[in-house]
Amino acid sequence: MKVNSVNEGLLIVISGPSGVGKGTVCSRLRQKMPELTYSISATTRAPREGEMDGVSYFFKTVPEFKKMIEEDQLIEWAQYVGNYYGTPRRFVENTLASGQDIVLEIEVQGAMQVKEKFPQGVFIFLVPPSFEELRQRIINRGTETEALLNKRLEAASDELNQIKNYNYVVINDEVDKACECIRAIVMAEHCRTDRLKLSDQNS
Amino acid sequence: MKVNSVNEGLLIVISGPSGVGKGTVCSRLRQKMPELTYSISATTRAPREGEMDGVSYFFKTVPEFKKMIEEDQLIEWAQYVGNYYGTPRRFVENTLASGQDIVLEIEVQGAMQVKEKFPQGVFIFLVPPSFEELRQRIINRGTETEALLNKRLEAASDELNQIKNYNYVVINDEVDKACECIRAIVMAEHCRTDRLKLSDQNS
Repeated sequence: MKVNSVNEGLLIVISGPSGVGKGTVCSRLRQKMPELTYSISATTRAPREGEMDGVSYFFKTVPEFKKMIEEDQLIEWAQYVGNYYGTPRRFVENTLASGQDIVLEIEVQGAMQVKEKFPQGVFIFLVPPSFEELRQRIINRGTETEALLNKRLEAASDELNQIKNYNYVVINDEVDKACECIRAIVMAEHCRTDRLKLSDQNS
Repeated sequence: MKVNSVNEGLLIVISGPSGVGKGTVCSRLRQKMPELTYSISATTRAPREGEMDGVSYFFKTVPEFKKMIEEDQLIEWAQYVGNYYGTPRRFVENTLASGQDIVLEIEVQGAMQVKEKFPQGVFIFLVPPSFEELRQRIINRGTETEALLNKRLEAASDELNQIKNYNYVVINDEVDKACECIRAIVMAEHCRTDRLKLSDQNS
């Protein structure tokens, strides 16, 4: 009998309500876990200074993006503030097939689209230490009308209720601590019995 | 909405075939993870020099041990080489109720008894890098007749087939690496959504 790790890499989804700090956690994670591959999103928004195609994003025209949707080239996609954003399927699938783990930093809505296609993925939900803390973070982002603020808080509350669809919950109290939890989750997932291939050779 | 860690500690079972090095891994783990509580077995064997009651083991007479079995005071028990060994229930239950994690280092047979009573436990199976390696470790333990050696190898092979009843498989190639995997598993299990208590208070 022999124990082999499964050959395919892990698909790791990091999500959570807006304002929870997904971007900050994932930036730190890139430094702390350079051995992971990070998915690059496709977008129709214009490149900002310093942004390079294929590094920050895959920059697409609207017709190009719509063609990607039609041809099922995106694992998930959504429209934000007039621009399209999505996760190209091929890069994710090639990375997994090569045995490497890939991280997707995406919105809650997109994460649920990914779960339908990759139920074996590792779904991590970042949460604020408390709802009050999330409220403060959203307020601190900038001056908003009270109506808009309430709408955002309601949306965040709805998103928090998606927690049950995730495998893990990581409290984003301190960024380094959140990264350590994610590292532990990735390591533990590689040891899960249901991810191992067992062969019966007695050698 | 608020996310609370579950109040009860984790019951962590470390098991694996004889010869895999459970004792070595758990000794190192005590140094590396002193924050965990380690279960103390009850036994009818005589104390060796330096062994203290309630530290190394709970030392019992045979009638005392049999009474513990009758009164369902043991989570699991077995007889080895003429002596009884078992895991007292009260110490485990009190530790878990106080919110602390407890580690049980036990044989495969005992681990399956524990699983019936604590299905929510974290069951970790230590495996050798290969069956050949396990064979060498058993041979190196001392001079054995070929018949006895074959019997032991057969038993180890049967035990390896229990792997499917465990949540995690950790390869005991290097002791420090095995301990790091166990640390990651404990940390990740504390983040599992199905172990969290969620309340709907918006504060």
